[in-house]
Amino acid sequence: MTDYTPRPEDKFSFGLWTVGWQGVDVFGPASRPLLDPVEATYRLAELGAAAVTFHDDDLLPHESTRQQTLDRFQKALADTGLRVEMVTTNTFSDPVFKEGAITANNRDVRRYALAKVLRNIDLAAELGAETFVMWGGREGAEHGASKNVPAAMDRFRDALNILCAYVEEQGYDLRFALEPKPNEPRGDILLPSIGHAIALISELDHPEMVGLNPEVGHEEMAGLNFAHGISQALWHGKLFHIDLNGQHGPRFDQDLRFGAGNLRGAFWTVDAMLGAGTDLRYDGYVHFDYKPPRAEAIDGVWESAGACMRNYLILRDKVQAFRSDPEVAAAIEAAGVAELEVPTVAAGESLDDVRAQFAGDSFDLDALRNRSVAMEALDQLAMEHLLGVR
Amino acid sequence: MTDYTPRPEDKFSFGLWTVGWQGVDVFGPASRPLLDPVEATYRLAELGAAAVTFHDDDLLPHESTRQQTLDRFQKALADTGLRVEMVTTNTFSDPVFKEGAITANNRDVRRYALAKVLRNIDLAAELGAETFVMWGGREGAEHGASKNVPAAMDRFRDALNILCAYVEEQGYDLRFALEPKPNEPRGDILLPSIGHAIALISELDHPEMVGLNPEVGHEEMAGLNFAHGISQALWHGKLFHIDLNGQHGPRFDQDLRFGAGNLRGAFWTVDAMLGAGTDLRYDGYVHFDYKPPRAEAIDGVWESAGACMRNYLILRDKVQAFRSDPEVAAAIEAAGVAELEVPTVAAGESLDDVRAQFAGDSFDLDALRNRSVAMEALDQLAMEHLLGVR
Amino acid sequence: MTDYTPRPEDKFSFGLWTVGWQGVDVFGPASRPLLDPVEATYRLAELGAAAVTFHDDDLLPHESTRQQTLDRFQKALADTGLRVEMVTTNTFSDPVFKEGAITANNRDVRRYALAKVLRNIDLAAELGAETFVMWGGREGAEHGASKNVPAAMDRFRDALNILCAYVEEQGYDLRFALEPKPNEPRGDILLPSIGHAIALISELDHPEMVGLNPEVGHEEMAGLNFAHGISQALWHGKLFHIDLNGQHGPRFDQDLRFGAGNLRGAFWTVDAMLGAGTDLRYDGYVHFDYKPPRAEAIDGVWESAGACMRNYLILRDKVQAFRSDPEVAAAIEAAGVAELEVPTVAAGESLDDVRAQFAGDSFDLDALRNRSVAMEALDQLAMEHLLGVR
Amino acid sequence: MTDYTPRPEDKFSFGLWTVGWQGVDVFGPASRPLLDPVEATYRLAELGAAAVTFHDDDLLPHESTRQQTLDRFQKALADTGLRVEMVTTNTFSDPVFKEGAITANNRDVRRYALAKVLRNIDLAAELGAETFVMWGGREGAEHGASKNVPAAMDRFRDALNILCAYVEEQGYDLRFALEPKPNEPRGDILLPSIGHAIALISELDHPEMVGLNPEVGHEEMAGLNFAHGISQALWHGKLFHIDLNGQHGPRFDQDLRFGAGNLRGAFWTVDAMLGAGTDLRYDGYVHFDYKPPRAEAIDGVWESAGACMRNYLILRDKVQAFRSDPEVAAAIEAAGVAELEVPTVAAGESLDDVRAQFAGDSFDLDALRNRSVAMEALDQLAMEHLLGVR
Repeated sequence: MTDYTPRPEDKFSFGLWTVGWQGVDVFGPASRPLLDPVEATYRLAELGAAAVTFHDDDLLPHESTRQQTLDRFQKALADTGLRVEMVTTNTFSDPVFKEGAITANNRDVRRYALAKVLRNIDLAAELGAETFVMWGGREGAEHGASKNVPAAMDRFRDALNILCAYVEEQGYDLRFALEPKPNEPRGDILLPSIGHAIALISELDHPEMVGLNPEVGHEEMAGLNFAHGISQALWHGKLFHIDLNGQHGPRFDQDLRFGAGNLRGAFWTVDAMLGAGTDLRYDGYVHFDYKPPRAEAIDGVWESAGACMRNYLILRDKVQAFRSDPEVAAAIEAAGVAELEVPTVAAGESLDDVRAQFAGDSFDLDALRNRSVAMEALDQLAMEHLLGVR
Repeated sequence: MTDYTPRPEDKFSFGLWTVGWQGVDVFGPASRPLLDPVEATYRLAELGAAAVTFHDDDLLPHESTRQQTLDRFQKALADTGLRVEMVTTNTFSDPVFKEGAITANNRDVRRYALAKVLRNIDLAAELGAETFVMWGGREGAEHGASKNVPAAMDRFRDALNILCAYVEEQGYDLRFALEPKPNEPRGDILLPSIGHAIALISELDHPEMVGLNPEVGHEEMAGLNFAHGISQALWHGKLFHIDLNGQHGPRFDQDLRFGAGNLRGAFWTVDAMLGAGTDLRYDGYVHFDYKPPRAEAIDGVWESAGACMRNYLILRDKVQAFRSDPEVAAAIEAAGVAELEVPTVAAGESLDDVRAQFAGDSFDLDALRNRSVAMEALDQLAMEHLLGVR
Repeated sequence: MTDYTPRPEDKFSFGLWTVGWQGVDVFGPASRPLLDPVEATYRLAELGAAAVTFHDDDLLPHESTRQQTLDRFQKALADTGLRVEMVTTNTFSDPVFKEGAITANNRDVRRYALAKVLRNIDLAAELGAETFVMWGGREGAEHGASKNVPAAMDRFRDALNILCAYVEEQGYDLRFALEPKPNEPRGDILLPSIGHAIALISELDHPEMVGLNPEVGHEEMAGLNFAHGISQALWHGKLFHIDLNGQHGPRFDQDLRFGAGNLRGAFWTVDAMLGAGTDLRYDGYVHFDYKPPRAEAIDGVWESAGACMRNYLILRDKVQAFRSDPEVAAAIEAAGVAELEVPTVAAGESLDDVRAQFAGDSFDLDALRNRSVAMEALDQLAMEHLLGVR
Repeated sequence: MTDYTPRPEDKFSFGLWTVGWQGVDVFGPASRPLLDPVEATYRLAELGAAAVTFHDDDLLPHESTRQQTLDRFQKALADTGLRVEMVTTNTFSDPVFKEGAITANNRDVRRYALAKVLRNIDLAAELGAETFVMWGGREGAEHGASKNVPAAMDRFRDALNILCAYVEEQGYDLRFALEPKPNEPRGDILLPSIGHAIALISELDHPEMVGLNPEVGHEEMAGLNFAHGISQALWHGKLFHIDLNGQHGPRFDQDLRFGAGNLRGAFWTVDAMLGAGTDLRYDGYVHFDYKPPRAEAIDGVWESAGACMRNYLILRDKVQAFRSDPEVAAAIEAAGVAELEVPTVAAGESLDDVRAQFAGDSFDLDALRNRSVAMEALDQLAMEHLLGVR
């Protein structure tokens, strides 16, 4: 039986807030004790992670213990060989951000958010992170009129321009990754999908410094196909980072362990990350942003963290087997998949040539109408790879 | 009582396929007889429309009667003063397009689609349309592997580049508008939201020639806020056209008459079209893309068409009253809405200035945390304008 | 202008947990200070409420202050004339209930839950409540196998049988009302809809003692029509209580103030409560179970509470105007609505008589196929009543 | 490698309308030629089906060829050994049913529907079917007021009482199975979920003659857990029949082949059908109600039909392995699943005994709060069985 033990080259990464989630939700307080983030770092290393990530407040909630915790944390990194590949800023928990941070109506709040992000960028650079994620969980509204959306877009744009300029000035080797989400905790969040965030980036001074950190559940909450979404992001050169987890379609943000929820979607997600038969692949860290269910005690926390990695490895193995199966290659051929790579109009061809092909009754449209597409057959092969019966 | 009679300057426009829908769905055949599109044009003029739009196949389904129908149609336009403001191509009904048109795996299908679109562009130009909509209803997949998404994006991009070049060459005064939709009739459609379509446009040779034609129901099927979506599109300068209708959130595409479904959303939609208190407003035709329910006979068809316009006028009236109500102005002030227009960092200010504001304990964060945002009060004023009790 | 001031006979009732919600959610801590429930009682009385309701833990979180708080609370009731019309038990916040309460796998937890409910029933009876609501927020699962659903149904049934027997024995004048919800905070909650709960009741020893407390948002999270749901509940004689609020379809539980979210749904909800033109009407308290958005400070709490009542009164006014408008009566006639009250087979008629009606070609089916149903016209009248333009 | 060839004892059954679907949808006409239902019967037999089912109109659309087709069909049954296990009536395609059938406002329509159902019941009995399914696809409304819901419930009840009496009178050995669906093709359909239909049954004269035919996609369109739903139906003794297919949550009715869509849900569905470790199991036919995607030609039709059975057999195999794996048994024990079968209050115990357990401070609630529930570990075992890596 294949070995699904995580190895450093698998580049697994966990947010410290994932295993550290204590189970507080709208309907109840913490069900688990506080987990020391430094202890969590050691434990994640043991489980096979290669990196950790955090919001400033996850690791350093108190000013008074900041330096001491940082020292302990850096010792843990040194001891374990883990690195900090990504850092992000919590601009959504403190009630000061209750109506937004970067796009709060209140200008002092926006300035406070900016200062908080700047300080955290310095820390990210110090720790050698390569990606700086921005999730604006409270940037949005419950209803119209209270938020001037074009003005909010201006503030988003300005903030990103300012931050990019700062990173350049400081000479940091850091890229930004925006994380879209459609709703929760706000009624409607700005930049609700992968597409909306890429659109914003096209308006920036330094579009090359800003990409995306899409999350499985965030797109699936909108009923969107995550594999399609990250494939479009790869096409734009914008898949800078990724958040893997599980979700059951439009409902509250479940943050299930990777694989749980939409399992077939997870298979196609891994396939898309590996390039889906193309040369556009994701080379970054395989980052999990999930929550161990509130019902679980600490044993369930580590169980689910391990399962995230294990499920990824199992799915990666299956995707590779799928993509290298000769019968699959034949089925892909039968479905005409590669033909889509051929330009519709050949180099040197005129549009009159294209039109001429269908002039009069010479072209047999009925044959095209009746053609086999053989996509169910191909999908069933994928299904059987996934189920492990091939 | 206010008069809600549509007038030409209201710029109401209807797809001929809307009132012409015969009620065919997955579960049953036509419930209404075929409506002659030329007759429909006269009737829509009587009801108060200023323009009509159509897919090639709506008006001209048969080659043999094409010229005769066009003559009758142009007479109807002349008789009524209606214009054709937009034309679109049906690349989704003919089974030839069963797995896509512009992004079909089959290259002949793509070429056929291109030829069909080109012919229709010529017609659109001939009829004086200013907008050419492209909805790719079958561009997508039911499952992974059968569609190479980056290749599909290449084909989308190429096709739009080719079409823009063609329009330029011909000297047509025509802009393209992409219509996003997340799913139905395909399992997952490419360019599923406003954001994804704007993102694609940023990769084109002539981005200025391509914008969007967002549809209320298409965004709401993904649980997205339509007013936010078109506000972001306006911010990008991409709201070239609009499809108004009604929907009840994530479920099948209902295409209800405008106002039905999410009524509060309709209020904010009209508000966003009128600029939502900003100078970014939509100046194009107010276009309805809805379906009279299959249960209705022909009386219900015209009833619902009239109601689309009437509901728009009612809502426009209410939005204008809302935006000019001094108490609303005070509530907007109390909610700090205008403050979002003030740049976060003033011209000439340094980031050190921003950081200094919060250094030490001098800044009273608690006051910010506890501040009133007064957004419920503002929203309740909007509610009461909508309900007509102010 | 009509006066929409709440009066005692309007029977408005609020959960103390509504205005008392401090804004804790998955993404952040409290944004508002603790509100003393006794103070809230006085304030709700001033706003026009006729009653309050609570979970045991809302009012009496600490054993040590229980009697003192109860005394203060009863004084407040006496001072204000408010009554306690409903009491419910919190079996979802304490981590002890993390995997269920009445249907926890752990038997000690089930027994603890039962003891907690029993104690609270005694309190409900002491305070003169007529309804005892049971919402099992943690009764469910994130995934299969961990919960034996038939066994859980047995435990639900047993618990309700035990509680009904207890109430009978004690001679309490109290009825139970089950509150369904599809998901959140658990991945899938048992008894997910109005229908599932009524089904359970049909298996009880004392079905007459148990009914429902449906919540607008809970049904709408499943995309279900709330007015249809409570109409079916009324038809079964099971609408014992109601929870009014607002929601935007399938997504997280928004608990918006009544009217916000699906406004047309709110109109039909009030219509259904008033009988929708039938003699099946809801006569109980008009109970609000909503959450003032976390962004709001205390001013927004009271603003939104007042708006719940005001919106109900506005909608009630409109529903009554709609139902008494002669043009609406004519439209209802045209839509054949009353004809549905005529039995399909007349008394004394045989099925052979029915069959004979359509034998041979004598019956004109085409006329039926082409008949006008005139439902859009009727709905547009409702729309215009709602918008206040009639 | 295990053999997944369907055998008669697997009791696979297909609706003739499944493979016979020609691909007509709201956006396009047929993409496949008409499939002769008798030919389809032979073909399904070859693929391994044990039974077929049909709507009257699927098999016998024309009066003039009715007897001849029936003769050919009965010969096919004799030739293949297939049986007709279920028959259902099409009361949704003919425009006569455009606003309902059994609950149409128009009484003649209701009578016509009744006559159509009666004739079909006679046919079902003649063909030896044991189940008679009723899906009321058009019983519903797009908006309020047009449908008096309590009157509709009366008509549903009356019709079922009449039909049960008829079956009894005729001495037919036939049970009815109601099929719930939340929406599509109507805006909101009455009896939207498993629960609502069971609730109705509890009001009938002969509740024992009426059960359910739940469909995977119909519950999942409402975001409901299908395995939970059929488990509750089994608990009520009401799972008379089943419709297996695939769906991606709240959106249009996809009718994917079984396994596609929510694959983990499919695993738990099979587990629930097999009893989920309890003695409540489904013993009826394993019936598929799906649609080969419109893009497929006839090869894809048979491919997908075969894949429905194959996926069921694969999943059944995995469920059996899961349920007999000793490590799973240990995990189920660790999760306390069996403990839920122990009554909360023991025979002979009083409620005072229960209360006494928690009196004072003697009981260690904190230990219960902190207990391990080990549900993630159990679910991960299920995941690995599903993925075939155990």
